[in-house]
Amino acid sequence: MIVVLKHNPDRAQLESLITWLQEKGMIIHTSIGDHNMILGLVGDTSQIDTDLISALDIVESVKRVQEPYKNANRKFHPNDTVIQVGNTQIGGGNLTIMAGPCSVESEDQVVAIAKAVKKSGATMLRGGAFKPRTSPYSFQGLGAQGLEFLKVAKQETGLPIVTELMDLSQLSLFKDVDVIQIGARNMQNFDLLKAVGRQDKPVMIKRGMSATYEEWLMSAEYVMAGGNPNVILCERGVRTFENYTRNTLDLAAIPVLRKLTHLPIIVDPSHATGKSWLVEPMSKGAVASGCDGLLIEVHNDPAHALCDGPQSLRPEAFDSLAKQLLKLHDLMSTLED
Amino acid sequence: MIVVLKHNPDRAQLESLITWLQEKGMIIHTSIGDHNMILGLVGDTSQIDTDLISALDIVESVKRVQEPYKNANRKFHPNDTVIQVGNTQIGGGNLTIMAGPCSVESEDQVVAIAKAVKKSGATMLRGGAFKPRTSPYSFQGLGAQGLEFLKVAKQETGLPIVTELMDLSQLSLFKDVDVIQIGARNMQNFDLLKAVGRQDKPVMIKRGMSATYEEWLMSAEYVMAGGNPNVILCERGVRTFENYTRNTLDLAAIPVLRKLTHLPIIVDPSHATGKSWLVEPMSKGAVASGCDGLLIEVHNDPAHALCDGPQSLRPEAFDSLAKQLLKLHDLMSTLED
Amino acid sequence: MIVVLKHNPDRAQLESLITWLQEKGMIIHTSIGDHNMILGLVGDTSQIDTDLISALDIVESVKRVQEPYKNANRKFHPNDTVIQVGNTQIGGGNLTIMAGPCSVESEDQVVAIAKAVKKSGATMLRGGAFKPRTSPYSFQGLGAQGLEFLKVAKQETGLPIVTELMDLSQLSLFKDVDVIQIGARNMQNFDLLKAVGRQDKPVMIKRGMSATYEEWLMSAEYVMAGGNPNVILCERGVRTFENYTRNTLDLAAIPVLRKLTHLPIIVDPSHATGKSWLVEPMSKGAVASGCDGLLIEVHNDPAHALCDGPQSLRPEAFDSLAKQLLKLHDLMSTLED
Amino acid sequence: MIVVLKHNPDRAQLESLITWLQEKGMIIHTSIGDHNMILGLVGDTSQIDTDLISALDIVESVKRVQEPYKNANRKFHPNDTVIQVGNTQIGGGNLTIMAGPCSVESEDQVVAIAKAVKKSGATMLRGGAFKPRTSPYSFQGLGAQGLEFLKVAKQETGLPIVTELMDLSQLSLFKDVDVIQIGARNMQNFDLLKAVGRQDKPVMIKRGMSATYEEWLMSAEYVMAGGNPNVILCERGVRTFENYTRNTLDLAAIPVLRKLTHLPIIVDPSHATGKSWLVEPMSKGAVASGCDGLLIEVHNDPAHALCDGPQSLRPEAFDSLAKQLLKLHDLMSTLED
Repeated sequence: MIVVLKHNPDRAQLESLITWLQEKGMIIHTSIGDHNMILGLVGDTSQIDTDLISALDIVESVKRVQEPYKNANRKFHPNDTVIQVGNTQIGGGNLTIMAGPCSVESEDQVVAIAKAVKKSGATMLRGGAFKPRTSPYSFQGLGAQGLEFLKVAKQETGLPIVTELMDLSQLSLFKDVDVIQIGARNMQNFDLLKAVGRQDKPVMIKRGMSATYEEWLMSAEYVMAGGNPNVILCERGVRTFENYTRNTLDLAAIPVLRKLTHLPIIVDPSHATGKSWLVEPMSKGAVASGCDGLLIEVHNDPAHALCDGPQSLRPEAFDSLAKQLLKLHDLMSTLED
Repeated sequence: MIVVLKHNPDRAQLESLITWLQEKGMIIHTSIGDHNMILGLVGDTSQIDTDLISALDIVESVKRVQEPYKNANRKFHPNDTVIQVGNTQIGGGNLTIMAGPCSVESEDQVVAIAKAVKKSGATMLRGGAFKPRTSPYSFQGLGAQGLEFLKVAKQETGLPIVTELMDLSQLSLFKDVDVIQIGARNMQNFDLLKAVGRQDKPVMIKRGMSATYEEWLMSAEYVMAGGNPNVILCERGVRTFENYTRNTLDLAAIPVLRKLTHLPIIVDPSHATGKSWLVEPMSKGAVASGCDGLLIEVHNDPAHALCDGPQSLRPEAFDSLAKQLLKLHDLMSTLED
Repeated sequence: MIVVLKHNPDRAQLESLITWLQEKGMIIHTSIGDHNMILGLVGDTSQIDTDLISALDIVESVKRVQEPYKNANRKFHPNDTVIQVGNTQIGGGNLTIMAGPCSVESEDQVVAIAKAVKKSGATMLRGGAFKPRTSPYSFQGLGAQGLEFLKVAKQETGLPIVTELMDLSQLSLFKDVDVIQIGARNMQNFDLLKAVGRQDKPVMIKRGMSATYEEWLMSAEYVMAGGNPNVILCERGVRTFENYTRNTLDLAAIPVLRKLTHLPIIVDPSHATGKSWLVEPMSKGAVASGCDGLLIEVHNDPAHALCDGPQSLRPEAFDSLAKQLLKLHDLMSTLED
Repeated sequence: MIVVLKHNPDRAQLESLITWLQEKGMIIHTSIGDHNMILGLVGDTSQIDTDLISALDIVESVKRVQEPYKNANRKFHPNDTVIQVGNTQIGGGNLTIMAGPCSVESEDQVVAIAKAVKKSGATMLRGGAFKPRTSPYSFQGLGAQGLEFLKVAKQETGLPIVTELMDLSQLSLFKDVDVIQIGARNMQNFDLLKAVGRQDKPVMIKRGMSATYEEWLMSAEYVMAGGNPNVILCERGVRTFENYTRNTLDLAAIPVLRKLTHLPIIVDPSHATGKSWLVEPMSKGAVASGCDGLLIEVHNDPAHALCDGPQSLRPEAFDSLAKQLLKLHDLMSTLED
């Protein structure tokens, strides 16, 4: 950590700061320039709140050198985290395809889609029972009943389930859920993160609409600090000035996170773009950029979907895409020969 | 609502769409151009989900003409909402100054600050008991005990309290709280919005980090649709590419919201800028732009604040500022003479 | 084009507007709702300035249905534009690899790099002679001499040259340049666009730092409206709140532009990310998403490059990458079998 | 300047870096931590290109402590720059109101508006002769003839003129122009900046659509480094995800720039918001936040303006506003009593 002091700092305040930092176990190196004095802090700075220091009258700015996350940090955990879910593994060189409807609408619907996507190569079933909707007047999901329908689809196909938890009060209903999804709007719902940190199920955290990589990893850190090491990160686009697409899909997140963390990285091209015709090219781009999996919306009747129809693929289109993606994933490893 | 159809839409699908819209009570006007056909929908479109329609194969795009919010819409409620809190009113031409520490740290601290800010002209006491922090290793607030200290400060000064609710599980502790604050990170925590919509306390909703005006008003709509008409909106800056300031304070939100909604509008220059020396000029700008109040962080010892010290004013600086703001607010009404 | 009128518009003003629009050749359809009246305009609306109409007292908003660009619009030119440059073609299913140093530094440097990248599979040589630098104190490029060195490299290798034109005054020096690059900061330098629209050389327009797809295509339209049909679009990332990478590379631009326009689409992963270790994964992602080519920085000694060293690949790293990309490009067409 | 090295840097490369920095006159302080080694550079770092250093294999990141601009830096020029234009002064406690049409349309128009705005209190006349327009099919301004009309208006009213220069080729026509405006799209047209740096007229630089404060000040530095000290900065909003307003007006720019630089700061609420009804509240906010002046569009017939009508005020509305702003500016100085 680097503390840049203002010109001519008060001596007494400076000594008080240095003493306080030394008590926290820091070793301090000072550089004195013409206009600024700099303190270089050496030690475990992850417990030091930069806000506290930057509030001091004598301090101009504080800059971290070490990342503020530890459990999620590849520096301290060099090996990839591989997460076992049912018979499938997320991470470790696999391509996990999670597919299914945005919203669960009926038992028939979700079972039919589950069977179709399994046949096409999907290894997990996604589907929303509790839906975060911008408008109170939009369909809010089937709730508990939706979870029951997902359970039936799981029994019929063997596909593990990933579905969104919106509030602690729903947690008791999630017994048969295999992976808990935390939605983009809840990425910094810290009470929810703490709660899922106490569960023994894997947690998939979607990137917040305008979350930096570091904030996203700090949300993973909340879950991991609670004792749950099985966190999956899901890129779903960020908000920018461009609104032709719903969000701007940030595929550079894949290699960046690969470097910063050991956690698996999934990409959701459906929500990111909001347009079904963009799902194919962006899925291919994501696989070629090295993601561990994809989260794709599939609906048997997009035009009558109760939610997010415009971005859903029909089962036939998904079938063609899934096969291409699995093939592309295999081919990627042959490029370097 | 306007539905732009693709070139040469399938006749059967088009008729099916028109019939479905007519069943929803819409009257439909069609315009046929060289490249596109347009449907103009007339009627109460707030219950129609644009996603459903844009998913259709024959549809190119859907555009709303009417706002999707009703309870929060000035068109349907032309008069300003004025909210009574204790002896003070928010809205209706008053300038409400909410002041206090970012975090409640001790009884002595919050009582001392409360007394000081009351003397300077503040009409409400703010202070965080439950704190949303990016890092699990940062101070998370005193919780229930913090609320107790706020209650003591309220008893000693008579100032009503505004404090943040982060999770439903905390609601039972909020009996003595006067205004429930929903933080920026929870602006689209829809379960929380529904819950506070069932309370009989006013709710202040901070703008999400990258929330549009419409999304923000839809969050207000969630609370109002639940039966609670007393919603206050708080602008606290949005996230942009510029990171010299913590966020970019959007003061145009004041006159824009004034036009779109009848709800009171508060500005938080402390969180928006993250720098105490920007609080004065931005508070003055906010008052001159027509806000109903300000939310200002005051700390007796910013350098040792457990949270957000860099943006807090000392009581003496706040005293000078509050007096200037109240004077400026009075002067604004004399300008047009 | 759709004109939404305010509630109860003045009759005389409305008639005057309708007459004016009819004189412009528009056919007008009206829809009258409870709160708004809507005019649907049918005809060639590309010549109508939406600003003029939205300024009227009686108008609430104006929305375009047709895109404002014509020459660049795929609707009117369904076939892909293929641009011949020397012995190579840009577009039409080829993968064009443009490689070379950010800045031309010496004859030896650029000739050596040109030979290396040609051997690796590059089909064009890139290199900056005139450099747009944020600071007046940074190296500004070799200028005319740099162009001479590029010319030598072209003679030695046969690789066509693409290099940036910053100002009209430099145009006379560009005789031996094969493709004129317009930089991101000049994307809306309209006088420059008009000038290159009068040239008979292809023009590659980099996307502005915060340009929408439509604005970018309007810049292409400026060049094409001047009589030059050979425009190439180059995605180089947009500015967002995330600053771990220099910019946020928007690979969805590839399929979106593919739909909107017939012009070739190149991706620059070097400038977009600003980090050499991100060039490989993002190049692969770009190829898999369907781009027509890549613009990659290669430097024989990145640590002593006079500009943008951190994002340059060494020739050996480029050699491995270029071969992988050409292989990947071939494989992509086999996926659908 | 702080250089953070990677873990276990190569000794030879490290010594080579240190020697090179010492040759540039830097004094170097080193801090060795558990995971990183840090170099603190002391001396005149403004001539050192951070890119060069961050390209080194052994370097993890480079952070500036000193700002990269000197001429524009308040640290080195503590006193406010006050610019004399005709009989009026910009900066130094004055409120300069620049008003006029977006585009000059005819002699009658601009003379009439000039007379009106002068009467209302404007001290400078603004008006566009060369207009940057997104579409090649929109009105591009009257050009040289427009400058002639502005000259007539200046002769009739005595108001100095500020108008936009889009390209070097137009410079010879600017003899009677008092302040040269560089538009937002040209903020990083470095050749244009260098050219106006050689003129003896004041230059007003509008903030680029997504320019940081530092980039904006570096553009001022280009002009000043060329020998022209008379630079004015004009905030006109930045591009964000919110598109209800054309841009997001960043009024915090006023006090931030006040701290960083000694140059005068003008605010353009007309272009920033794109809506005439927002001009009044945002102008008031700007004055209360401490700006040195405003740039306001006034048109005698906004509904028939050839450009940007929706954001123009009618002369009567401007008259009321200008009087209020001058009164508010006077009152601001009385608040602290």
